[in-house]
Amino acid sequence: MKTIPTLLISILISTSAFSQINTLMPVPASVTPQTGKFNLNSTFSVSVSGNPDPRLTKAIHRFLKRLSKKTTLTFDPDTVIKSNENTTFTLSVDRPGLVRLGEDESYALSISPSAISLSAPTDLGALHGLETLYQLIERDGSGFFFRSVQIKDQPRFPWRGLMLDVCRHFFKVETVKRQLDAMALVKLNVLHLHLSEDQGFSIESKTFPKLHELGSNGNYFTQDQIRDIIAYAADRGIRVMPEFDIPGHTTSWMTGYPELASAPGFIKPEKRFGIFGSTMNPAKPETYTFLDQFFAEMCALFPDEYMHIGGDENNGEQWDANQEIQKFKSENNLKTNHDLQAYFNLKILDILTKNGKKMMGWDEIYQPTLPKNIVIHSWRGRDYMDDAAKAGFQSVLSNGFYIDLFHSAAEHYQNDPIPTGTKLTDDEKSRILGGEATQWAELVDEETLDMRIWPRTAAIAERLWSSGSVINVDDMYRRLPEISLRLEEIGLNLVTNRDVMMRRLAGSDTISDLRNFLNAVEPQEGYKRHSIKPGYTTFSPFSRGVDIALSDAPDVISASLLVNSMIKSGNRNPDKKLFELAEIWISSKKKLTRMAENNIAIKELLPVSNQVSELGRLFKSLLEKYKSGKTLTKQELQKIEAEVKLRTKPVAELEPAMGSVILTLAKKMTPGR
Amino acid sequence: MKTIPTLLISILISTSAFSQINTLMPVPASVTPQTGKFNLNSTFSVSVSGNPDPRLTKAIHRFLKRLSKKTTLTFDPDTVIKSNENTTFTLSVDRPGLVRLGEDESYALSISPSAISLSAPTDLGALHGLETLYQLIERDGSGFFFRSVQIKDQPRFPWRGLMLDVCRHFFKVETVKRQLDAMALVKLNVLHLHLSEDQGFSIESKTFPKLHELGSNGNYFTQDQIRDIIAYAADRGIRVMPEFDIPGHTTSWMTGYPELASAPGFIKPEKRFGIFGSTMNPAKPETYTFLDQFFAEMCALFPDEYMHIGGDENNGEQWDANQEIQKFKSENNLKTNHDLQAYFNLKILDILTKNGKKMMGWDEIYQPTLPKNIVIHSWRGRDYMDDAAKAGFQSVLSNGFYIDLFHSAAEHYQNDPIPTGTKLTDDEKSRILGGEATQWAELVDEETLDMRIWPRTAAIAERLWSSGSVINVDDMYRRLPEISLRLEEIGLNLVTNRDVMMRRLAGSDTISDLRNFLNAVEPQEGYKRHSIKPGYTTFSPFSRGVDIALSDAPDVISASLLVNSMIKSGNRNPDKKLFELAEIWISSKKKLTRMAENNIAIKELLPVSNQVSELGRLFKSLLEKYKSGKTLTKQELQKIEAEVKLRTKPVAELEPAMGSVILTLAKKMTPGR
Repeated sequence: MKTIPTLLISILISTSAFSQINTLMPVPASVTPQTGKFNLNSTFSVSVSGNPDPRLTKAIHRFLKRLSKKTTLTFDPDTVIKSNENTTFTLSVDRPGLVRLGEDESYALSISPSAISLSAPTDLGALHGLETLYQLIERDGSGFFFRSVQIKDQPRFPWRGLMLDVCRHFFKVETVKRQLDAMALVKLNVLHLHLSEDQGFSIESKTFPKLHELGSNGNYFTQDQIRDIIAYAADRGIRVMPEFDIPGHTTSWMTGYPELASAPGFIKPEKRFGIFGSTMNPAKPETYTFLDQFFAEMCALFPDEYMHIGGDENNGEQWDANQEIQKFKSENNLKTNHDLQAYFNLKILDILTKNGKKMMGWDEIYQPTLPKNIVIHSWRGRDYMDDAAKAGFQSVLSNGFYIDLFHSAAEHYQNDPIPTGTKLTDDEKSRILGGEATQWAELVDEETLDMRIWPRTAAIAERLWSSGSVINVDDMYRRLPEISLRLEEIGLNLVTNRDVMMRRLAGSDTISDLRNFLNAVEPQEGYKRHSIKPGYTTFSPFSRGVDIALSDAPDVISASLLVNSMIKSGNRNPDKKLFELAEIWISSKKKLTRMAENNIAIKELLPVSNQVSELGRLFKSLLEKYKSGKTLTKQELQKIEAEVKLRTKPVAELEPAMGSVILTLAKKMTPGR
Repeated sequence: MKTIPTLLISILISTSAFSQINTLMPVPASVTPQTGKFNLNSTFSVSVSGNPDPRLTKAIHRFLKRLSKKTTLTFDPDTVIKSNENTTFTLSVDRPGLVRLGEDESYALSISPSAISLSAPTDLGALHGLETLYQLIERDGSGFFFRSVQIKDQPRFPWRGLMLDVCRHFFKVETVKRQLDAMALVKLNVLHLHLSEDQGFSIESKTFPKLHELGSNGNYFTQDQIRDIIAYAADRGIRVMPEFDIPGHTTSWMTGYPELASAPGFIKPEKRFGIFGSTMNPAKPETYTFLDQFFAEMCALFPDEYMHIGGDENNGEQWDANQEIQKFKSENNLKTNHDLQAYFNLKILDILTKNGKKMMGWDEIYQPTLPKNIVIHSWRGRDYMDDAAKAGFQSVLSNGFYIDLFHSAAEHYQNDPIPTGTKLTDDEKSRILGGEATQWAELVDEETLDMRIWPRTAAIAERLWSSGSVINVDDMYRRLPEISLRLEEIGLNLVTNRDVMMRRLAGSDTISDLRNFLNAVEPQEGYKRHSIKPGYTTFSPFSRGVDIALSDAPDVISASLLVNSMIKSGNRNPDKKLFELAEIWISSKKKLTRMAENNIAIKELLPVSNQVSELGRLFKSLLEKYKSGKTLTKQELQKIEAEVKLRTKPVAELEPAMGSVILTLAKKMTPGR
């Protein structure tokens, strides 16, 4: 059988019989299905040859534990792992992998009926291969097995990250470790920890203890905990890059060390959200003395070669208002605040360089005079990245990967760091290192974090790992629920915490009506929630309907896949599931009204439930017309478009999600469009 | 309105309209419902007067956070907590509570339409009052509120514990903290950590580092983590008592320090379960030198005044086989191994006393010559406790509270440390301090721990806190699901992890058939699982049907409550829910057979599903006969009893749970019985 180009896999997938091979995420570089299968039973044995880092043995132990749980069979490492190579599963690794940018992460996995072999230049590649193998477990009535297949795989981009803001809301060590487990499952390799903010200084400093003592409300990682996180990440082939955001976003620094400030008045960490203007004073030598000692401590604590200095959203107001700083600017011939920040950045660069680190910062730090080994982190727009690439700078894309803004997985999935048709040269392209999903933490807490990051970040992981030709959105949505199941198997609460929250909101363990409603609506995108409901703070409870709703309303995704497939195939008979969904949506208003009679917390959802009901009626009538072979006139289509527009207006920070499905079907039913 | 004796509350509960007051668990000592309600809205404010420990402020912060989550309203401590007493919720505490045995834990809670007041001699009582208040939150269509009520409350027993074995399986710090949160919710006050076992030495020793380095497989608490757990517990009014089980159950000690052993041959921690005979050598002075240093370290680490030395299940085989020990026995005129262990215990007692600790041990340590301040921990039978009480010793009951053995909540609930009709004098009774639920960890892991401990331990907590007259089993079962909801609101996964496990076992997110089946069966009780399926080790996966089944099959509990209430009321028309359950049970075989066609992991459940189907048919026919007013002859009853006996035989470590419900109904339908 010949190798199938990845482009074709997703097409093959939707037509062939079910196989776990067709659910892999991220899609490997090359997949060649073969005939037969490897049966997983008590004869399963594992050996490792070559020269891997000891982390591989730990990974095999974890793999065996997962395998045991999944199959209900006992795979005892003491007996399964053999010292000779006469085993059914052999791993071969050339050398220990280094957990740093650009390390070889490739692997080759071969499954035949008699044997599994996994080979990789480094154990980092072998870790990826183990995750692929875990995703491939299947079962039937006789046993568990892996289908025969040849996989050759390596990442498209070397920098595949998740940024976690642990300051607007703090997250426990175990919560961070869960994200690392999930990242490993989808082959991400950078955890970027945003460790200081106006709202909190979330790491212990032994040099300047008032930073965490007065700046964190008691919520910070000890240095032991940070070392624990770094070791846990390294065991999974994941770098941990810290960010200390300066000179802006620094209220929490000033609480303990007001002498750093450009203006007085910071008595405690901020609890509101927004841009507050708190900015370090770049005109005082003491600022650099402080930062010199501070970064010496943090550069020693974090082994990664990159240090992220933030640098975003300095509005300059405090600098403008400070006479001393104005004087400093003119004395040093710094015309603009951007010039002043550039001066500041160069001083920081010296400090980092002295400590053996390379500098990274949000795209505001970009200036042509910086050395070429810094990395520009593009968040305001992809132009900043392309400009940096042209000027010879490396960059990482987060613009378009802001998962805190409630956009759909599809939008993130289509956000290619190097899109088809780019004008960049190969040389320039090579400086685009990859991307990072960014989970800013204004509207998320311990309870909702997993469901906010996942599964959408799996789609981003595929964008960053797989070939640029893997672009079928419907196929991504088909595989995403499979990844959610794998994620919950390894401990993530992305599915279960929604149930917990629905039971609390309903005040009952009967939640099917509430679930049906919340699976049909989505939170408002972008920063709109803050303007619709001003006053969010670090004390706001994230336990309302909008906090349970997902950015990809699950039932609407199901409907969309069914409608798209129906249209594509020319089938005139809509799947009965579509009619069921329409009826469920129609009943929303009645069901929620009944719930709200005894539950004030449901009341705010009633207007949206009314919209959902109306759109359900519209959808049902369209399905019936489609089934009976009727078409729409352009005027009818316009009327439908107007109604959808009217009915998808947001209420309670929520909006009905089925508008686009209705429009897809309506347009298909309108000849001459 | 006059005070209702607690005996009557549960009767009142089942007849009156729903009120959270009737769901409280544990039932308070005195509850006087009043008219009206306190509306919870943005005017809510809190103040504290008196002289509490600072832990109370932290508890109020946690309370406000829970309240915010539950109501979706923001209760910002910065604005809700006032420094003056002009607030709607006032707390008054006389003095800081000491987290130690016998401290005053009483409180009085008064809710009127205009104000809530909580007063207590110590902040420990106030913590209990806050938990009661949290359980009392209600809602309707207009808002959230607390019903007016007067509650006066204090515990029946001063020692209300949960023992957690962290050695057969290790549990993370966060997992232990979750148990502490849950314990606080139901007013338990002792966490007993079983820290050393054949299978693992689960705590860092700085004096003898090979204990944890070689004895733990890497799974141990650092001393910093232990201090963190102790502080977390103390913030919730909970003592942490360590247990180091000696001289038996000590394989993990010998791995690093073989010189302690009575026989050679312990090269690594045990992974099987059972009694392995590894025993310390009581004849060597070096053993006591070691333990002197070891306990000095651990007595300093743990602030509690009690140190538990285990002492159980020393089978004496190693002592008998060791010539040196035999010689020592005869030289010291120690006739039996029990005498030798008594000698050993007295040496340990000296060490503990020197370090300011009182000694506790399993009932094997009992000997009349011990000083009267030691505590006997009864596990082999309640007789040991009564004997100890008569001889002047204090004791704690765990016999009957072995929650690891899969008994029903009802059985534990009816296990009163001082049962009605006891022959003990008041003086003897006063030496019975309370009890401890014991979660031994052979057949439990991180994933299943919460659902194994909870909600059953809430029933035990009520037994230990509430009056001995609170004994209505059906009423306990009515309230237990409410407590489960409260527990999951504060972070426990007792409900959700069952879903996760069912999805993994089903290999699908469609689990209603599997759930229906698993909600009707129960794991085999006692130690039977080990004999039915020999070979369980620390590597066994707990992901099978038996691991998802609960000791109180939820659907059978529902059926039982409905049948009991139907019989009591004389209603001839069975609730339609009963017929629905019968149909669900009847369909079990068909549904599971279909699942097993594509899923080997389901196959072992088919014989049990057949039994469930047959019993469902029997139940349905009985319901129909009952409805039509038919009776059974004694012969028919005997036939039914025989069939139930046949059909409840265990398979795959599981048994159908509806046998007793069927028999209850059948007996009721048989005149002259």
